[in-house]
Amino acid sequence: MQVKFSTDDLIAITNPRSLRGSTRDAVHGLASLSAAGRGDLSFLGNRKYKSEVASTRASVVLLPTDYQGAPASDQLFLLVENPSVALARVCAQIELLIWPKPAPGIHASSSIAPGVIVSPSATVGPLCVVEAGARIRDRAHLQAQVFVGRDAEIGEDSWLMPGVVVATECVIGRRVRLQPGVVVGSDGFGYEFSSGRHEKVPQVGHVLIGDDVEIGANTTLDRARFSRTEVGEGTKIDNLVQIAHNVVIGKHCLICAQVGISGSTRLGDYVVLGGQAGLAGHIAVGEGAKVGGGAAVTVDVPAGVFVNGSPAIPLQLERRLVVLQRRLPDLFKRVDALEAQSG
Amino acid sequence: MQVKFSTDDLIAITNPRSLRGSTRDAVHGLASLSAAGRGDLSFLGNRKYKSEVASTRASVVLLPTDYQGAPASDQLFLLVENPSVALARVCAQIELLIWPKPAPGIHASSSIAPGVIVSPSATVGPLCVVEAGARIRDRAHLQAQVFVGRDAEIGEDSWLMPGVVVATECVIGRRVRLQPGVVVGSDGFGYEFSSGRHEKVPQVGHVLIGDDVEIGANTTLDRARFSRTEVGEGTKIDNLVQIAHNVVIGKHCLICAQVGISGSTRLGDYVVLGGQAGLAGHIAVGEGAKVGGGAAVTVDVPAGVFVNGSPAIPLQLERRLVVLQRRLPDLFKRVDALEAQSG
Amino acid sequence: MQVKFSTDDLIAITNPRSLRGSTRDAVHGLASLSAAGRGDLSFLGNRKYKSEVASTRASVVLLPTDYQGAPASDQLFLLVENPSVALARVCAQIELLIWPKPAPGIHASSSIAPGVIVSPSATVGPLCVVEAGARIRDRAHLQAQVFVGRDAEIGEDSWLMPGVVVATECVIGRRVRLQPGVVVGSDGFGYEFSSGRHEKVPQVGHVLIGDDVEIGANTTLDRARFSRTEVGEGTKIDNLVQIAHNVVIGKHCLICAQVGISGSTRLGDYVVLGGQAGLAGHIAVGEGAKVGGGAAVTVDVPAGVFVNGSPAIPLQLERRLVVLQRRLPDLFKRVDALEAQSG
Repeated sequence: MQVKFSTDDLIAITNPRSLRGSTRDAVHGLASLSAAGRGDLSFLGNRKYKSEVASTRASVVLLPTDYQGAPASDQLFLLVENPSVALARVCAQIELLIWPKPAPGIHASSSIAPGVIVSPSATVGPLCVVEAGARIRDRAHLQAQVFVGRDAEIGEDSWLMPGVVVATECVIGRRVRLQPGVVVGSDGFGYEFSSGRHEKVPQVGHVLIGDDVEIGANTTLDRARFSRTEVGEGTKIDNLVQIAHNVVIGKHCLICAQVGISGSTRLGDYVVLGGQAGLAGHIAVGEGAKVGGGAAVTVDVPAGVFVNGSPAIPLQLERRLVVLQRRLPDLFKRVDALEAQSG
Repeated sequence: MQVKFSTDDLIAITNPRSLRGSTRDAVHGLASLSAAGRGDLSFLGNRKYKSEVASTRASVVLLPTDYQGAPASDQLFLLVENPSVALARVCAQIELLIWPKPAPGIHASSSIAPGVIVSPSATVGPLCVVEAGARIRDRAHLQAQVFVGRDAEIGEDSWLMPGVVVATECVIGRRVRLQPGVVVGSDGFGYEFSSGRHEKVPQVGHVLIGDDVEIGANTTLDRARFSRTEVGEGTKIDNLVQIAHNVVIGKHCLICAQVGISGSTRLGDYVVLGGQAGLAGHIAVGEGAKVGGGAAVTVDVPAGVFVNGSPAIPLQLERRLVVLQRRLPDLFKRVDALEAQSG
Repeated sequence: MQVKFSTDDLIAITNPRSLRGSTRDAVHGLASLSAAGRGDLSFLGNRKYKSEVASTRASVVLLPTDYQGAPASDQLFLLVENPSVALARVCAQIELLIWPKPAPGIHASSSIAPGVIVSPSATVGPLCVVEAGARIRDRAHLQAQVFVGRDAEIGEDSWLMPGVVVATECVIGRRVRLQPGVVVGSDGFGYEFSSGRHEKVPQVGHVLIGDDVEIGANTTLDRARFSRTEVGEGTKIDNLVQIAHNVVIGKHCLICAQVGISGSTRLGDYVVLGGQAGLAGHIAVGEGAKVGGGAAVTVDVPAGVFVNGSPAIPLQLERRLVVLQRRLPDLFKRVDALEAQSG
């Protein structure tokens, strides 16, 4: 990554409340407080690293406004409301360098069916396939080797990374980012058992992805049996997650890696699911509920409740049971002693 | 989805025992009883929704033969043996509209090695790669961006969706459906530890997928060390499942999403594995056995037994232990009281 | 698989300490002792199958030097130090037949940006995409439909199988094997919550994969927030594993299928993680530590310690708790009896 930010650039980007010290160095990289050297930008994002500020060799450090220390010589402190947010703004500038906005147009190696609508401001990169009836909206970006199926739609400013598959009739909103290998619209897993065989229940619904959603690498979202599977606006989904048919996910949820959500389950807004959690089918998880990593949710979760464990129960009870389980060897001995005494 | 079924079409497809009422509407969509409006087909698939039939606005409703109520005006009831199966038949018609049988032939953008056999009735869509010695049988369909490795075989009427990889020497049976991103024939995970390093044990076997198997998006199946990894006829595998080398899966099994099966484990016929279950290597799961979602199976499971939990044990015992664990706080108090009394 | 090894070939490959018996057959296949027939090579890799040697019909059998029995007529025993290693050497020869070294060069159907460096000894197969600034080193092999992003580097002798994605600025070492569908360099999962929305923290670091690493099918590795995510030399990773941003994995680790490692967690060298294990973020796992299959690691694990369970604890304690939990029904009865007695 070749970056170069002057002190003035960084002040313009992070808009600090105040400055302390100064540096002649331009910033060429980012690093943690302990790893940073001359020419690096660092930041205090978590107070537990506060003691590392005094010894960091970073040329520029983003710090909270209440930080008391003084910079070393040739070192600049930028005092900002939220150092993490300020750093994110710097990273957003770097992102534009790493992934510059592509030029509009359709790469000659892509296979675009007749009748497809591609906005003149959209970019279809090399070796993509777009089937009949699909619509690629303004400034959408199919990076490379992307597949967009029959009658599917890709919304304004969305970015589909290499190897993404958006199957027939699925609809992707605006400003959506699909990481490499995401599959939207695979068949739901539905069969009827008849005469000793599992007969397929055709899955003829679709998937609707709301605006500002992000979906992680190799995550899969199944099309509905009929009607649709939905992911609400602003929800972020990590890698290798499974979303089954007819699931409805609310707005602004966070779904960590390797979570599995079974068919027809519904999540309210602002739900958080920890990594590797599993949700049974046909249940409801209320607004703002949280599920711990690896938890197995088998029944409805009320709004705002934090559940954990397998099967999942409210966190406080689960924490207590874990503690008591570790005391089982002692409990058995105590019961042995009572029996000996009473014998 | 643009569909249109006349009343006569629906009667022909579902072959009802009897009719009640009538409608002038054609059917343009499918919906659940509560969501349906004019022009929709709905159905009573689960008796718990029975009360919703009276108020549904669907133009046509598929109902079990013993349903007693009367249709609203301009509403048609079709009384059938199994409304779910009848609906599946309608969906199968819709599926043909969504994914019409493709015209045979090889898309000019695909890369087909010399000496490959492609049936004249097969379809190889855009941007596929087929390596030397592979055989693509009658009416097989490589949709787009599919890879078929050296000497692999794709059976009659099988459908490989975008981004599927079938590696060297693997054999796919007839009427198999591989969802997007499926990998058949990745290397098994085998190493010998020697001089401080893990030396690769080459994996030179292959994978055999039986007739009528379906495999979900981004699922992976490893080739055998030598000999072969097998999936039996009629088995259905969901998304993001891991099948390790030398696993042998029987016929007509159901394997839900995110299951992992370790090397050399064998499943009998009609086994059902719940989502996120994990099976240790070198174990046997008997015919008709069931494994609960998230369960960790570490020893053989006899035929017909349902196991659950981590480590997995027979369901009834596991259910009892879960109940008793939740009573641990009370148990500790009871032992405290006994000690106080006896002290 | 068409293979043919003469007796002399097998002696040259396996370098046995001694021979017993002889055969006129050439070897055309490999099989387990019980499955082998005439013309097969078999081996005794695990002593529990020792009794099967006497009845195997294999033409040639690899046996440990202390094996006492005599071969059948027209059967050759090769007595070697380690039959598994000897077999691996035979398989390595077969591997070269199955996947012969490809001819160097760039397939005409691939899309290579201007300014990319491709070694004259490297192979870029059909329908690959290589973005600007990328470097493909000597004898590297992009098999088919591979994506290599801007400024990424693929080291000498590495093999990227079909559908692999190596995103912008990621660096792949030498002799690395990436199975189909691997994603290196997807965005890390990082957001700041602000005004009711999850605002993206841009992920502008990269991923560094050391020499001799192997990564299984559809596994995902996220780029760092800044700096880099690392996998140490000689580490082997199985299918469908999730490696989050800023994770650092030591050398010669084994990471089984469907493991998830959360952000910024660090593994020492020679760590072993069982299938479906989950590791929380920001923890340290010491050199040579082991984590059981499905375990949920929430705190640091000291070097050399084996942990298991959810939440993970040292194995011996975990095994004891599992045993005691199964005795809970009995314990409740015992406490009932004590209470009856004392009442």
